[in-house]
Amino acid sequence: MQLYNYYRSSASFRVRIALALKGLGYDYQPVHLVRNEQLSADYSALSAQRLVPLLVDGDATVSQSLAIIEYLDETHPQPPLLPADALGRARVRSLALDIACEIHPLNNLRVLRYLVKDLGVNEDAKNGWYRHWVEGGLEAVERRLAADAATGTFCHGDQPGLADCVLVPQIFNAQRFDCQIDQLPTITRIFQACMALPAFQAAEPSACPDAET
Amino acid sequence: MQLYNYYRSSASFRVRIALALKGLGYDYQPVHLVRNEQLSADYSALSAQRLVPLLVDGDATVSQSLAIIEYLDETHPQPPLLPADALGRARVRSLALDIACEIHPLNNLRVLRYLVKDLGVNEDAKNGWYRHWVEGGLEAVERRLAADAATGTFCHGDQPGLADCVLVPQIFNAQRFDCQIDQLPTITRIFQACMALPAFQAAEPSACPDAET
Repeated sequence: MQLYNYYRSSASFRVRIALALKGLGYDYQPVHLVRNEQLSADYSALSAQRLVPLLVDGDATVSQSLAIIEYLDETHPQPPLLPADALGRARVRSLALDIACEIHPLNNLRVLRYLVKDLGVNEDAKNGWYRHWVEGGLEAVERRLAADAATGTFCHGDQPGLADCVLVPQIFNAQRFDCQIDQLPTITRIFQACMALPAFQAAEPSACPDAET
Repeated sequence: MQLYNYYRSSASFRVRIALALKGLGYDYQPVHLVRNEQLSADYSALSAQRLVPLLVDGDATVSQSLAIIEYLDETHPQPPLLPADALGRARVRSLALDIACEIHPLNNLRVLRYLVKDLGVNEDAKNGWYRHWVEGGLEAVERRLAADAATGTFCHGDQPGLADCVLVPQIFNAQRFDCQIDQLPTITRIFQACMALPAFQAAEPSACPDAET
């Protein structure tokens, strides 16, 4: 398998965690988003959306991080990243989507660029925008996790899964942009439990071949 | 089942289509987003995220439109809204996520409000933002659909499914905000095939009990 990704892309980071949790090896194909390599003719031929991550598995090409992780979970079921019951799966998917749809899309590189270049937003207002969506979005996730007995050592029970693959990269982003996360004790506890595992450590941005200091 | 939703919420619309395709009845519970009813104490007790849609199915409460549709597909398998094979499922999920993660989150009511109230963006620039993400995002989806033999009468083959449930509400939004969609022949063809079906007609905003003229 080949994974086209960028060390600092949190959607890429989600997939790297899933691959590591399943113990699957892959060729790391860097696509430098800041240099706009995703818009090159070569990459556009592979990815109609011109986005990372992209997984190539033999003849199959799969895009969108959550779809890639579900695909990996179906084609390599052990260890499972989704619960066995429909309601548990719905809970895990909805936690993942609380981050993937409500927080992360607002803070993508291309969105921040549009704010600055097209709307003339200054640096302070741009950072305020970033923190607004991250802090409010993570507080909603915290309320869910703190109130639900289905939360365990990890987002769902005592094994890491899809929701953890999505939560951890969002916390890395939050830290990088100095977001306030002290008010999130359940998320902080789960983040620490994840980062104690070798699979999460191996997937983190600083461990990537294309990492920049 | 009870569906908490708002006639103009495109995430709600997705779920209404899925319920209609499966022929499932439900109690329609309106939550008026423009009046901020989603922030009320009563609704917050039900939805930690204070978002619609929300499905209540007996003791189960499921949030996030894509998670709700997958839950419905698992608990009421006929007719299926996802293909039987892992690669087909990945394709359909990734098409749905191309809209649910790359387009729709940028054009939510609360995001447009933040642009105007917190960033002081004027009406023209706000509408430009809206059209930028819708047009660019749908062009990427068009490229995928047009280039792939797996596209049929609908997004995936000749039966409507999850990707169509997500595409159609996005086209309603695009039309409402006068986005340019003439350059999207495959999407236009699929949209028309969907809207010829009673399930899509029954789910559309103007058919909802809380619709405003």
